[in-house]
Amino acid sequence: MELKIEKDIEIRFSEVDSMGVVWHGAYSLYLEDAREAFGAVYGLTYANYVAQGCYAPIVDMQIKYRQPLRHSSKVKIIAKFVPAEAAKIIFEYEIRDRETDALYSTGKTIQVFMDLNYQLIWQNPDWFIEWKNKWQQ
Amino acid sequence: MELKIEKDIEIRFSEVDSMGVVWHGAYSLYLEDAREAFGAVYGLTYANYVAQGCYAPIVDMQIKYRQPLRHSSKVKIIAKFVPAEAAKIIFEYEIRDRETDALYSTGKTIQVFMDLNYQLIWQNPDWFIEWKNKWQQ
Amino acid sequence: MELKIEKDIEIRFSEVDSMGVVWHGAYSLYLEDAREAFGAVYGLTYANYVAQGCYAPIVDMQIKYRQPLRHSSKVKIIAKFVPAEAAKIIFEYEIRDRETDALYSTGKTIQVFMDLNYQLIWQNPDWFIEWKNKWQQ
Amino acid sequence: MELKIEKDIEIRFSEVDSMGVVWHGAYSLYLEDAREAFGAVYGLTYANYVAQGCYAPIVDMQIKYRQPLRHSSKVKIIAKFVPAEAAKIIFEYEIRDRETDALYSTGKTIQVFMDLNYQLIWQNPDWFIEWKNKWQQ
Repeated sequence: MELKIEKDIEIRFSEVDSMGVVWHGAYSLYLEDAREAFGAVYGLTYANYVAQGCYAPIVDMQIKYRQPLRHSSKVKIIAKFVPAEAAKIIFEYEIRDRETDALYSTGKTIQVFMDLNYQLIWQNPDWFIEWKNKWQQ
Repeated sequence: MELKIEKDIEIRFSEVDSMGVVWHGAYSLYLEDAREAFGAVYGLTYANYVAQGCYAPIVDMQIKYRQPLRHSSKVKIIAKFVPAEAAKIIFEYEIRDRETDALYSTGKTIQVFMDLNYQLIWQNPDWFIEWKNKWQQ
Repeated sequence: MELKIEKDIEIRFSEVDSMGVVWHGAYSLYLEDAREAFGAVYGLTYANYVAQGCYAPIVDMQIKYRQPLRHSSKVKIIAKFVPAEAAKIIFEYEIRDRETDALYSTGKTIQVFMDLNYQLIWQNPDWFIEWKNKWQQ
Repeated sequence: MELKIEKDIEIRFSEVDSMGVVWHGAYSLYLEDAREAFGAVYGLTYANYVAQGCYAPIVDMQIKYRQPLRHSSKVKIIAKFVPAEAAKIIFEYEIRDRETDALYSTGKTIQVFMDLNYQLIWQNPDWFIEWKNKWQQ
């Protein structure tokens, strides 16, 4: 079963730069919106992490920009959970036109688990193993 | 004794909007930069507040925009502490040209004291009375 | 006829500060979201302004913060157009709980008209007089 | 000759998230600050690009986060120009402690040239070839 969500992106005026396109740094917000939407559906939010005594900070983010987004662009973001053996949470993203499905941008993030003192947790936490068993079969 | 600081503003590319001027919402950052610079000089930082067991959230912010700022603008911000009887921290701000001293913008913020459970502290905390006695005579 | 809109606010993780509440500067985004939603309904967007050969920059913004917003807060923003004789666009805002209607924050913005060279337009533009006649009777 | 600059990072309160560390998306700002500082020294700014009739948008950004940054962190960013044959501008970045030189984060960006209608320029523009000849021998 492929775990993924789609979410419409509302492009804010303030995210458009002086060249008339969405500032590249604003895409971090869109990826995070997508992760939050995923978390709301599948039970994997920051609140969940903290309730389990850990954080899940991003340790790697890559974004590829193919076509510029404009204030008037009507796009959605797709976030797909990428299964992994290691104690990591990996997502891949696509930003696509809502009508034509044209691809504007892709991205990838990797999160690790840290305890509340910001020490790396090397093994998959039990609750995350359960989560994966629940959703990934 | 008038308590104030001056700090140069570095205008970021990302703060300029599609009209070619600094987005009005970015001024919140400049005012905060000024408060942090003030705090570093006079000992009134977020870290100080927390060390005293309180927060000092902003409850009122007003900004007046007279002349637009551009990416190339060379400006500074002046933050002035405004003495008050009430348990409040009030600052007034001016954004001015570094060379001509022309006025681009003014602002004002009001902060109150809250305990770490976000309950309002109605009286001036002792440490803040001491702070005022130290600096305001 | 009162011109106003309501829009749900989605609080982003990145808008929450280290005190666990929404950073005061993020409210500029919420007010702008509300203005854009208003513009979409009533035909008063940045694209409309530019099509008429003008900008409508914000010259005054005031925000009052009564209750802190958190990542989990379920709130909406109401933007109300305030009629004025002068060549200005004035909005008042309220941020309220979606369920209890409790008031979290209020705000006000004033916009003026400028031509594309950023020179102030002192008189109400014809198209704006027509717009007001259409909606305000 | 290696082309690089170093610039101190001033961490803003608003860039710190509710976990008490700098929000991962804020690093886009730091990388851009570094590119602007590089451009100011070596003559490779957005204003330069536009004066040459082109834009240089980012088409790829990757950031690796090793150690979290905090509000109190005293760090600098190093941006190094990476020579390339293709019509691209490539930078590599390091965020390091100002005192211990400890490595907090690394990054990489790739920019391409586009004309003012956002059409890709496949060949190195003449002015960029001159720029490389000037600095890279």
